[in-house]
Amino acid sequence: MGEWEQATQHDHTPGYTERLGAPLGSTVRVRLRTTLPVQGVALKVVQVGEIETFHAHEVSGRAGPGRWFEAELPLHDARVRYCWQLNVPGDHLNLTALGLHHARRGFRSWFQYLPGHVAPEWAWKAVFYQVFPDRFRNGDPGNDVVTGEYEYEGRPVEHVAWDTPVSKEGDIHAHYGGDLNGVTQALPYLRDLGVTALWLTPIFVSPSNHRYDISDYRRVDPHLGGEAAWDELVQSAGEAGIRIVLDGVFNHMGNENALFRAALEREDAPERQLFTWRDTPGKPPYHSFFDVPTLPKIDYRNEYAVQEFFSGEESVVRHWLRRGAAGWRLDVAHMIGGGGSDADNLPLHRALKAAAREERADAYVFGERFYDPEHALDGQGEDGSMNYHGFGLPVMQWLAGATYFGEPSRITGGEVAEILWDAYHALPPEVALSMFNLLESHDIGRAHFRVGEDRVKFRAAFTLLMAYAGVPCTYYGSEVGLSQSRAGNMPWCREPMPWDEAQWDRALREQVKALIAVRRATPVLHSGALRFLHAEDDALAFLREVTHADGRAERAVALASRRGEPHPVTLTLPVGTWRDALSGETLQGGAVTLDASGGRLLVSV
Amino acid sequence: MGEWEQATQHDHTPGYTERLGAPLGSTVRVRLRTTLPVQGVALKVVQVGEIETFHAHEVSGRAGPGRWFEAELPLHDARVRYCWQLNVPGDHLNLTALGLHHARRGFRSWFQYLPGHVAPEWAWKAVFYQVFPDRFRNGDPGNDVVTGEYEYEGRPVEHVAWDTPVSKEGDIHAHYGGDLNGVTQALPYLRDLGVTALWLTPIFVSPSNHRYDISDYRRVDPHLGGEAAWDELVQSAGEAGIRIVLDGVFNHMGNENALFRAALEREDAPERQLFTWRDTPGKPPYHSFFDVPTLPKIDYRNEYAVQEFFSGEESVVRHWLRRGAAGWRLDVAHMIGGGGSDADNLPLHRALKAAAREERADAYVFGERFYDPEHALDGQGEDGSMNYHGFGLPVMQWLAGATYFGEPSRITGGEVAEILWDAYHALPPEVALSMFNLLESHDIGRAHFRVGEDRVKFRAAFTLLMAYAGVPCTYYGSEVGLSQSRAGNMPWCREPMPWDEAQWDRALREQVKALIAVRRATPVLHSGALRFLHAEDDALAFLREVTHADGRAERAVALASRRGEPHPVTLTLPVGTWRDALSGETLQGGAVTLDASGGRLLVSV
Repeated sequence: MGEWEQATQHDHTPGYTERLGAPLGSTVRVRLRTTLPVQGVALKVVQVGEIETFHAHEVSGRAGPGRWFEAELPLHDARVRYCWQLNVPGDHLNLTALGLHHARRGFRSWFQYLPGHVAPEWAWKAVFYQVFPDRFRNGDPGNDVVTGEYEYEGRPVEHVAWDTPVSKEGDIHAHYGGDLNGVTQALPYLRDLGVTALWLTPIFVSPSNHRYDISDYRRVDPHLGGEAAWDELVQSAGEAGIRIVLDGVFNHMGNENALFRAALEREDAPERQLFTWRDTPGKPPYHSFFDVPTLPKIDYRNEYAVQEFFSGEESVVRHWLRRGAAGWRLDVAHMIGGGGSDADNLPLHRALKAAAREERADAYVFGERFYDPEHALDGQGEDGSMNYHGFGLPVMQWLAGATYFGEPSRITGGEVAEILWDAYHALPPEVALSMFNLLESHDIGRAHFRVGEDRVKFRAAFTLLMAYAGVPCTYYGSEVGLSQSRAGNMPWCREPMPWDEAQWDRALREQVKALIAVRRATPVLHSGALRFLHAEDDALAFLREVTHADGRAERAVALASRRGEPHPVTLTLPVGTWRDALSGETLQGGAVTLDASGGRLLVSV
Repeated sequence: MGEWEQATQHDHTPGYTERLGAPLGSTVRVRLRTTLPVQGVALKVVQVGEIETFHAHEVSGRAGPGRWFEAELPLHDARVRYCWQLNVPGDHLNLTALGLHHARRGFRSWFQYLPGHVAPEWAWKAVFYQVFPDRFRNGDPGNDVVTGEYEYEGRPVEHVAWDTPVSKEGDIHAHYGGDLNGVTQALPYLRDLGVTALWLTPIFVSPSNHRYDISDYRRVDPHLGGEAAWDELVQSAGEAGIRIVLDGVFNHMGNENALFRAALEREDAPERQLFTWRDTPGKPPYHSFFDVPTLPKIDYRNEYAVQEFFSGEESVVRHWLRRGAAGWRLDVAHMIGGGGSDADNLPLHRALKAAAREERADAYVFGERFYDPEHALDGQGEDGSMNYHGFGLPVMQWLAGATYFGEPSRITGGEVAEILWDAYHALPPEVALSMFNLLESHDIGRAHFRVGEDRVKFRAAFTLLMAYAGVPCTYYGSEVGLSQSRAGNMPWCREPMPWDEAQWDRALREQVKALIAVRRATPVLHSGALRFLHAEDDALAFLREVTHADGRAERAVALASRRGEPHPVTLTLPVGTWRDALSGETLQGGAVTLDASGGRLLVSV
């Protein structure tokens, strides 16, 4: 870090990697550019546990400082790892995804190529907006839950007015009346904001307001408008250029589900196989999500479960892709498995994605993996995962000075850069670009609340979100300043969306909208490589870069401070002319001092 | 690095981890010591992909600076990952194997516990000596290969005199006449040197001098003295307190093997299943080691192969353990697999080790993994692997200023420390302690040659070898200065052992012997935790530490320079009194300046 102009460069973009996803068994041309006085360059490739060496020859006619070398990378495995060796007078260096080193780094840090891999590239260009359906917009009060309509966990559900603050008592029982009709009504609003994709938390028949306790995976909850509302939403969203990703709760179901009811009723019911039965004192007689009796865990040791949810011709995964969903967000993806555990988690994810892709070639499948997901991200299972570990949690911990649990933290910008970079560099490039980045969600405290309603800090966070490698997602209402009434995670982060514009921070909405527009209009942010340019305690900056086949580079730089007041930061930009993507001001590369507060986004011109 | 006295400490030794290998399903008491002003300490444990939190309570009555906290670690999985969280005023920190950080590090860097794991602890205390049988000692000229006795690869084999320099022509055809009788004769020599274990490269019937092309896995080569010589060696070595590890060539066999001959002869021979047949122009009609026709690759897709070599009641692995071998070194361990590839490599290694352990409860099984072996080292397969990646190659690259291929390198001590530490910290502790450390072998250039016959540099290397975490192994002859006639790897590193003492560097042998004695007499070197204390371009130092149940620490420090002349290095030693393990001089901890040339080994008193 600190040196933008690395002496030697290779990444996944066209100047350095002729194409992504070339078929297994073929070769792909890869290139390296270097300003070092090299006497020879070799490509090193891991093959059946050995390192094979291939000569790289010099090629001419490409832009950029230094000389270019080229070699053919053989694609012999589902994940090919490779690096470069550069011989220089009296020395030699290895270039891995981690940079230039004298020692041969571990394979984790080598470059990765995924033969035959197909990434959902539309998602790279998308800006997602997360909707918690009960709280976003009430389009049809006629379908609202009525107070006392049914009981759940021994208490009647309750209909509450839209402006009622979220309460502990209402945690899962308070229904505000939001529905899919409301989402359809809000499409012009969303389109105006610039979002191009929605992630809806669960929409299927469920007793709670969050609907992670599904009673029927094949029916839209009537309180959300039922099938008709879904069909209308898909149709209208499609016309508005907005795709919809659904929330797949495949680790556990709700105890009111007919499958579970059947399993409970008869010892010889075939549905018994869907669950893991046990006899453990003090626990439900079946494995369940955190031992909550209402959330029986699905057991994928049994083909019945695999067929029902993932692979079968009429599986839940396939059903909703046929009905217009663009992909799946997978709830507690890391827990899915057989025998009451996460056994066979990765093979199950592979089966799930294979079915999804058969149904829809560009289905985007990403898992909720709240913790380090690296082991799951080999490209064969989910496309990416929710990037709490490698983006959202460290960034917000830094800006808020505390974790989402409110634990104070003096984490520095340097450490944030280090953890983000460590997580990024170890992923295959298409996976890194498919990571689902977010600052907040229905599970953790809202960003506005966590930064003390400081709009400057929020803009810094949002700038990083829009510029980072991966798929950005903003949480409903943050664009107008929606926050929460008290500290904490769920349910406090689930206040209803204000539709009275008098309650909006309109200036904030304009800023958010402008940043979304920049994200959408800047291809280097969709597919560019990443490296960190600068880090100090209160500021950090990273570079995104696409090198075209002719060697010409296209770049963007994001800079952010965690200070609420002006914060001049000096960093070195790549040479050339830069434009501030929001203000339009131009400046020249080299050492520059910029106010980093509120975030800056610069693009090369 | 640079700060020896970490504010907060946890490791696998008894003060911090009550015991190793406690059974799956039980709990184990773990502790943390800290001088930070903590307000609370928690243990974080990965369970089914979630992070569970357990309270750690303060305990008293233990030695060492700071306060002690204790928690019960639940052992729910074959590999449990955990870390600590420390809450301090206005901040909190995470302690992983990588140290203290504000950001939650990836799981790779968390502490690891292996429930039910049984490590071959004798090996931790052992000092190994590698013997290449044809070149170590000719105990019975009557069993020597006779020139022209048979042909191999179209050329007659040749008997050459003991003092004939190794030549390219003699690469695999020149037989010097070394045998197991010679090893038995040399036992007093080896015992005097202090070695307690031998790794013999292959001893079974084979046409080449290196014997990695085995014709009969169940017979000792008659040219090495046959069965009687083996039995005598096992008997005598046992009496001398020396164990013998054999070399298992399980990826491929020699083409003169009866199994392969049978497979070649008849299309319907059951032995056909042992190989992977193919029809690829320009290649042998079967998969083979690097497409060498004389080395057909064994196909473990078939149960026949698994039974024959690993699991069967009369398998090769079991056979030689019954006949007195103490373990197996596994040739090209990373290549073993099914279908002509490394498919199922790890499950096969698990099967191999399970069979070995059934036969001999403390069998030491380690693989040749010339490159980064981390993915294979989860504790369920081999005990450890040959530590080329995480020790021998970087250390010798630094001391020699070049790789084993002669590529010049300006690698610094800092980078050596970085790569060693990165490799070490990611392994389960028992695996890290079971890594087979070496500076040189029959496959790569000799250490003396690589350091330009500089004894000072060699001693630095040998000091690091004896002090590092893992099982040290020295290569035959290095103790008396055996080198090679020209640059390169094999066959040049396979010169015969000189038995004419006039050719020995006796002073060197005394130094080597003294360092071996220190290794054996210093328990902290067998099982201690590791951390780096100091690194600069030309010097590095690390600490080994065992903390006893009462909190008292036992320590050793290794310091080495790559300079051939005196090199004063200033570093900070833990407080207390230290003794130079060779000279007996004592000194006080704190900042000290020591001559690091030739290596130093200090132990706490």
